[in-house]
Amino acid sequence: MSVDAPPPSVADLFQTLLPSANTASLRDSVIPSLLQGIADIAQALRGAQHVARAGTANTFGDEQLNVDVVAENHVRQALERCPSVSTASSEEDPVERAVRPISPAQGEQYTAAFDPLDGSSIIAPNWTVGTIIGIWAGASALHALPSTSQICAILGVYGPRTTAIIALRLPSGPSHCIELGFTDSSGTWEIIRPSVSLTLPSEIKTRYFAPANLRAASEDPRYMALVTSYISQRYTLRYSGGLVPDIVHTLVKGHGIYLSPVTAGSKAKLRRLYELCPLALVVECAGGRAVDPANGTEVLARPVVDCNETAGLVCGTAGEVDVAISALLGAVN
Amino acid sequence: MSVDAPPPSVADLFQTLLPSANTASLRDSVIPSLLQGIADIAQALRGAQHVARAGTANTFGDEQLNVDVVAENHVRQALERCPSVSTASSEEDPVERAVRPISPAQGEQYTAAFDPLDGSSIIAPNWTVGTIIGIWAGASALHALPSTSQICAILGVYGPRTTAIIALRLPSGPSHCIELGFTDSSGTWEIIRPSVSLTLPSEIKTRYFAPANLRAASEDPRYMALVTSYISQRYTLRYSGGLVPDIVHTLVKGHGIYLSPVTAGSKAKLRRLYELCPLALVVECAGGRAVDPANGTEVLARPVVDCNETAGLVCGTAGEVDVAISALLGAVN
Repeated sequence: MSVDAPPPSVADLFQTLLPSANTASLRDSVIPSLLQGIADIAQALRGAQHVARAGTANTFGDEQLNVDVVAENHVRQALERCPSVSTASSEEDPVERAVRPISPAQGEQYTAAFDPLDGSSIIAPNWTVGTIIGIWAGASALHALPSTSQICAILGVYGPRTTAIIALRLPSGPSHCIELGFTDSSGTWEIIRPSVSLTLPSEIKTRYFAPANLRAASEDPRYMALVTSYISQRYTLRYSGGLVPDIVHTLVKGHGIYLSPVTAGSKAKLRRLYELCPLALVVECAGGRAVDPANGTEVLARPVVDCNETAGLVCGTAGEVDVAISALLGAVN
Repeated sequence: MSVDAPPPSVADLFQTLLPSANTASLRDSVIPSLLQGIADIAQALRGAQHVARAGTANTFGDEQLNVDVVAENHVRQALERCPSVSTASSEEDPVERAVRPISPAQGEQYTAAFDPLDGSSIIAPNWTVGTIIGIWAGASALHALPSTSQICAILGVYGPRTTAIIALRLPSGPSHCIELGFTDSSGTWEIIRPSVSLTLPSEIKTRYFAPANLRAASEDPRYMALVTSYISQRYTLRYSGGLVPDIVHTLVKGHGIYLSPVTAGSKAKLRRLYELCPLALVVECAGGRAVDPANGTEVLARPVVDCNETAGLVCGTAGEVDVAISALLGAVN
């Protein structure tokens, strides 16, 4: 009689992925605490039937909802539980502030940059929304090279279930992208996909596209032509308007292209620090590409110098990104 | 000191909307029991982290997931709790079967037709999915005129929260469309919107479009031209690929157009009995229109004669439906 081995626990998995003592706090404190924060946000959203406005506006001028404040507080509380996190800033409060002093002798030191609740416009219709968190080595996320300094990104996904994507890329080791799920009844996270990959075999049956900022196509004939080419090639449209669900769809399906180009009349709305950098790390750790549609360079190749920087985004399956960038940067026919 | 009156309970609201003794069972048994079934499905989905395949196929050839079976069972159990429900059929078992015998003297007699879990393709990425239920007066939903025989439709919406839309149209009274929300901690439903309406003032800021079955645009230049016209007019795209979240988005935002035309190469996939008729009742009760894109006639104007009938759909804000149908049925430019 064969006996199946029990599935590995999340703690076992991270022990395997992050065996070094140099990342012990990231492994044993930062990631578990932020996962708890995501579970707390999920719980809060479930009861937020009356998504009333808080009466305040964040510094980007968005209408801030009560649930944004609740989510912000849960992430802040999670970070306060992590002795190695010295600095934090968020899309709701885009200034790097000290969480606590950390002496150089302590070893690990991290900065968190996060969007506590992305997708405000689709909260009322009860569509899936998410949290975006980037973890950076050192005392600041600014002026550092994202491709090496941002070592971890976590996405919380609030839908029928509560799930999370975790991307890891330490300077000394391989990249990892995993999917976890939170089970309310047990209060624990479990592994759904130990390896999330955008590099599936080429014989993919269904190809997906997610054209964000589609108003830009009314001004840029190259974007319009690209969108109609996807339709003509019978790609499947999936576009929720929430960055987290749209990117996670691509990851879970193993294929997809997400486009958010920028034109003079449709300005860049995505924050590099709070949205683009963490999402780009996730996509790259899954084997995909994430580039700036203004010039086709990698999102993570250029430091963030101001918390409020914005840009466009093209990301997903690497070959699809190449095709899209060629089309968007090519000559207007 | 002014004291706010407590908000009306869901039971109070239905007592107001359905005061007649002739609909006492619908009010006190059918609707509450189905709402409980929706809460049960939401609970089951939360723990369904490993959405494994059941190894069976439903009669439409879709891949049936375990969660489909769980949802089917919860709706069936809910119907068994309702003494006035004599007949039921579902998208997973599309044959009208007796739930129990009902004597003519009993008064109320209903038939339920439902899709227990719509949106299988977006369950894995954790996007919002839904349940669709139509309640018909009498011993069968077939061969009856839907516009008068289908008296109630219920949508369950499983996202960050659990919500429901209920549409009511009794032969003798006005139409109603309301939104409810389920709070886990209290185990109760509460009123979110006592009146859901697609007839908001004309000065709507944002106009939405949801182009389903977009592959049809690769064959039908009229659909392609309609889609590009929405883009040119800077409509906002929201398309999840789930019928329930896509229609509910329109309802909650107060504006939108959902399009699922049919061509020779992109066949009709929407079931009239399990999807189109209940959704059409919801849209009409909110003041919108739901029509067959093949000829522009109302979805509810033609009896369902076979449980397996399929068709296309254009629905949403009435004026938008008129424009879309003119474009789709017009001459090819």
